[in-house]
Formats: sequence, structure tokens, C-alpha cells
Amino acid sequence: KIPKICVIEGDGIGKEVIPETVRILKEIGDFEFIYEHAGYECFKRCGDAIPEKTLKTAKECDAILFGAVSTPKLDETERKPYKSPILTLRKELDLYANVRPIHKLDNSDSSNNIDFIIIRENTEGLYSGVEYYDEEKELAISERHISKKGSKRIIKFAFEYAVKHHRKKVSCIHKSNILRITDGLFLNIFNEFKEKYKNEYNIEGNDYLVDATAMYILKSPQMFDVIVTTNLFGDILSDEASGLLGGLGLAPSANIGDNYGLFEPVHGSAPDIAGKGVANPIAAVLSASMMLYYLDMKEKSRLLKDAVKQVLAHKDITPDLGGNLKTKEVSDKIIEELRKI
Amino acid sequence: KIPKICVIEGDGIGKEVIPETVRILKEIGDFEFIYEHAGYECFKRCGDAIPEKTLKTAKECDAILFGAVSTPKLDETERKPYKSPILTLRKELDLYANVRPIHKLDNSDSSNNIDFIIIRENTEGLYSGVEYYDEEKELAISERHISKKGSKRIIKFAFEYAVKHHRKKVSCIHKSNILRITDGLFLNIFNEFKEKYKNEYNIEGNDYLVDATAMYILKSPQMFDVIVTTNLFGDILSDEASGLLGGLGLAPSANIGDNYGLFEPVHGSAPDIAGKGVANPIAAVLSASMMLYYLDMKEKSRLLKDAVKQVLAHKDITPDLGGNLKTKEVSDKIIEELRKI
Ligand SMILES: CC(C)[C@H](C(=O)O)[C@@H](O)C(=O)O
Ligand SMILES: CC(C)[C@H](C(=O)O)[C@@H](O)C(=O)O
Repeated sequence: KIPKICVIEGDGIGKEVIPETVRILKEIGDFEFIYEHAGYECFKRCGDAIPEKTLKTAKECDAILFGAVSTPKLDETERKPYKSPILTLRKELDLYANVRPIHKLDNSDSSNNIDFIIIRENTEGLYSGVEYYDEEKELAISERHISKKGSKRIIKFAFEYAVKHHRKKVSCIHKSNILRITDGLFLNIFNEFKEKYKNEYNIEGNDYLVDATAMYILKSPQMFDVIVTTNLFGDILSDEASGLLGGLGLAPSANIGDNYGLFEPVHGSAPDIAGKGVANPIAAVLSASMMLYYLDMKEKSRLLKDAVKQVLAHKDITPDLGGNLKTKEVSDKIIEELRKI
Repeated sequence: KIPKICVIEGDGIGKEVIPETVRILKEIGDFEFIYEHAGYECFKRCGDAIPEKTLKTAKECDAILFGAVSTPKLDETERKPYKSPILTLRKELDLYANVRPIHKLDNSDSSNNIDFIIIRENTEGLYSGVEYYDEEKELAISERHISKKGSKRIIKFAFEYAVKHHRKKVSCIHKSNILRITDGLFLNIFNEFKEKYKNEYNIEGNDYLVDATAMYILKSPQMFDVIVTTNLFGDILSDEASGLLGGLGLAPSANIGDNYGLFEPVHGSAPDIAGKGVANPIAAVLSASMMLYYLDMKEKSRLLKDAVKQVLAHKDITPDLGGNLKTKEVSDKIIEELRKI
């Protein structure tokens, strides 16, 4: 059976890196690609950031390949508020696990090996959407929601991930000294799972405060293996960590639920370089490699990652990494490498 | 008039770095030091993390020099919950501005100069203390409070700081694409002040998302001048940034309100190295230098900072920085430098 991929290019450089990724995927195997719209341009054109049809197709496919969408500045003049389609997709498809590998692929110095995974809860926390303004008190309030069910499933996901990928340690990141109720709950649930996975799989569990972790990621990232954390902490820490890779141009991600999987580069639509043909396609290509793994095409997934490694080793890179190749040229090099294997 | 300093050593290495800092201050000028208790040991001894008497003295003095306190793991068996005294002090004395300079003092390579300030709102945000658990929904909720008054005063503080310290740019860090109401308010207020300070003082204002900022601090910290942000974002970003300095051993901070000022190293009580006499006193000493500035002893403040610079230049440092001096030996070196001037 040929896998059906829902392709959402989105805005800006999403429209540059995704077509190249599709071209590379065609080199690797047979897929059916179904194109749908979403994003700010789509919003301006049809009034919807993500049309019903896109959601429907997404649900009918075996996986979703997503580019990037623009998030305009808050604009009160807009008739209908713009909500980022990626948030809608995460919510509607219940993609509760955001998986972000921080793996330095261009590292020859193996003593300095950076290779960890950030697993971020992707549906609640400060992304609850519950916010209001108390006129009388002149006080704005956002609610941070941590549910028992939401915590259990993401923490379980993280430990299962560790088992499957032969990882040795899961670290829970929190701020339970301040957020005693919400992160207290999260940490308590983590500690229950920790026992179980220690006994049954010999996987270690430990925990750190989010502020300390932000420093450790900068100073000693080698100490991490699998990180599990709440939504916004994961957002912040994974962007920070992508800096270790040389920037967002190399950072892939997966949004996984029990029924669907969506794969997207961590970078945004990058309006400053959009249209110039110089966007780095590698984050999108590595996201596609994660998609292949998800589709149970593990060997092809590995081949694609290896091809990217070669291209990085040869310094066939775009300007963001200090090279001078164009998006298409880097993709050509990746295809060349694939053909060699 | 001799300044009265309330000295709170606290726990762990607080009891090692603060006495040394006091010894150094005595070298520099005349002060009256009044010692008070707070912290986890105090809590275990007298049932109070911070006794009334400590708060009273703190309010009667011209400034407070604070060491570090231990935060025990959540322990349900404790009769009375332990609340960190630093939080009580920030709240009780309304110390709404947490000022954390990120200045690389041991940098000979001036092309790579890191010198910015993080100004963190210090009384509200996710530190509101409003949290509860909904049994039926099995949902824990923490409220993030952003008030108009709280935002105005911290943003004004940041711009005034920029004027006074001849800084050129203030960057507002937020997540207004998700926290539309709370960070929308914060950003809107920032944008109002931005206009005014651009016109009157030619100070630039701009804003970045907190996730992107976490990456920029790692990859290109030179882009920052003054940062202003909400409580927990400031907590995370300032710990991250202290990694740029070589760790928490060099990171000082000030907690400032309209009536009081409290000065503390960013590091904690460090139980792992406490009692060994190897704690790095420099973060505490630099906090004392910030205290001198606050007490309008600007020249002495600068002298103390210069003495620390010399000691770093000579690599007279503790093990955390790769040296082998003891706490007391580093302090001796600082005093030597002060005597040279
Ligand atoms: C675009 C934005 C809503 C999104 C987020 O905050 O989750 C992005 O930063 C990400 O990390 O995927
Ligand atoms: C000790 C803790 C409560 C405190 C905080 O979270 O503010 C600390 O991390 C800090 O940054 O001063």
C-alpha cells in the first residue's frame, strides 16, 4: 500500500523547502502526495487560516508534511482573529507529543557529542487558550492547564520512546518549586512512571528545574538523553537547544498523537529570506526522515538522515550555515548522496 | 550617615560567600551590618522560613544583602509548607524589578563582547500563587497574572535604566502569539513606552518571542542591550544567560522596588559543595557592587567591580571556573586588588 501524504506548504519558505523535500522523497520511494492549503496567505485569501478541507484530508492521510506558516503581529483591525493553523492541527488531531531531536549531525569531534530528544506536551499548559481580562482590576489572566490524563500520556510516551530508541535516561523538566499544583502534579506522575521503567527496563528517571535546565543546555548539553516537559517550557528549551545545532535550519520535529502524525521543520516562514531561494531545506528533509520512521520505513528513514550527514560533512550548505548553495542545490546534493547508496 | 545593611546569609554556601563579601565591604567603606535569619535551616529550627524580625529589620535598613536559601523537595509530611523566603521578601518589600547583568568580565576578546541586562518583573506572572486542582476534571490550574500597573512600572523601570546607564536599546520578550491577553497587554504597554523613549531619549525599542530569544541568547547574545520581560521568562532566560558568563558563580542580581533594594547572587545554596570552602564568592561580591551603586556610592561600586576583573584576569579562581583557590583565597585576592588602587 502506497502511503498517502498530506502536504501543507504554508507561507514563506514553507513553499520553498517543502517542494524540495517532496522531490527528495520521490527519489526514495512511492508516495501519494495530496496538497492542501493553510496559513496566513490562505487566511487573507479565503478568510480561514485552515479550511475544513485541509483538516479533512489531513485526517484521511497516513501522515502530514507541514512547511511553515506566518504569524502576523496582533492586529485589532482584522475582522476575525488569526489562529496559527499548526495550533489548530495539534488540537484537532490531538497531536499530544511534540518530538524534537537535538542531534549534532555535523560533529566530527565525538567527545563533544550532542544527541538528545526533547519531548514536549503539545496540547495544554499555557496553550490552553483560556485567557481573560478583568477590567475592574486591570488584570490579564492566562490559565496554565495541566491535566492528569495529559500528563500521563506524554510521560508514558517519553518513557516508551526511550525504550524503543534504546535511550537510558528520561529527565522531567518543571518548575514545581513555584508551580506547586500544576508542576507538582506533573512531577508526581513522572515519579510514578519512573519507578516502573526503572524496574522493568532499567531506564533512569530524574528531574531538573526549568531555569537550571536552560543553563545546562547551554553549558553541558551532553548530560541530557530524553527530556519530557510541559508545552511552553518545551517550546522555549527546544528553540534554545536548536541553537546548539547551528540554528533552526537543522531542527526537525514530529507532532504525534494516537491516530495521526505531522512532521514539520521547527523554523518559521522566515519572511526576511522568503522568495530568494536560499532557505535551508535540511530541517524539512530531516522532518521527512522522521515521517518515514513513523510510517515504519525505518531503513529509508536512516538512509535519508545519512544522506544529510554526508552533505553536511561536505559543507554543501546554505548561507545560514555559512555556505553559499541555494535551496535547490542542497537538495540536488542530497539526491546525489541517495543515489550513491 | 553610615549605611545600614541587613545581612541574610541563609543556607549552604550562602553562609560562606556572604561573610567574605562583608569582609570585602569593610575594606571599602563604613557600614553597619545587622544580621538576620531566613531559609530552610531557620524553618526547621523555628518553624518559620523567614521570621517577622527579619522582615522588620530588612525594612529598617538601607539595603539587604542576601546569600542563598535551600528549597527542599516537595514534602507532604511537613506540617507547614515551606515558602522560599526570597519570594516572601520580593512580595513584602514589593521588589518588583529583578536586575541581572550579563557582562562577561573576563573577556579579553572585545570583538566578542557580551554585555546586556535582563530586567525581570518580580512579583506577578506565574508567581501569582493562584493555583488550584479541579478534582472532577482531574485538572490542575495555575494562573498567570499580568496587571496593567505591574507591567507599566517594570517597563518604565527598564527604559529609565537604559537612560541612566547609557544603553541604546530595550527589547521586550513575550509570547503574545499564544498568550494574547496577558502578553498582549504587556507588549501593548511596552509599545506605548517605546514611542516616548524613542522621541525623548533616542532609545530604541523592539520585541522578540521568548522561544526565539532563548536561541538568540545561545547563538548571538551580542544583539541584546536591555531586556525586559515577565517573571518566569526572566527566570529562565537569566539562568540561561548566566551560562554565557561561565556559570552561576559569576552572576549577580538586584531586586529593586520603590522603597527597598535587595542584592543576591543568582546561584542557590549548592548543598553539593557547601561546607568545603570552595564556593565562588564573586557572584555575591558583584551583587554587593550593585548594592553600592544603589546606595549612591558609584565610585566604590566601580572599584569593586574592577578588583573582581583583575582577579579574573589573573585566573585567581575557584574550582567551578577551573581554578583551585578557596573562597577565602579569592576574597583575599580581591582585597589585595582593592588595596592596590
Ligand atoms: C508558531 C507557534 C505557535 C509555535 C508554538 O509556540 O508552539 C512554534 O513556536 C513552535 O514551536 O512550533
Ligand atoms: C529560588 C527560586 C524561587 C527563584 C525563582 O524562581 O525566582 C530563583 O530561581 C531565582 O531566580 O531567584
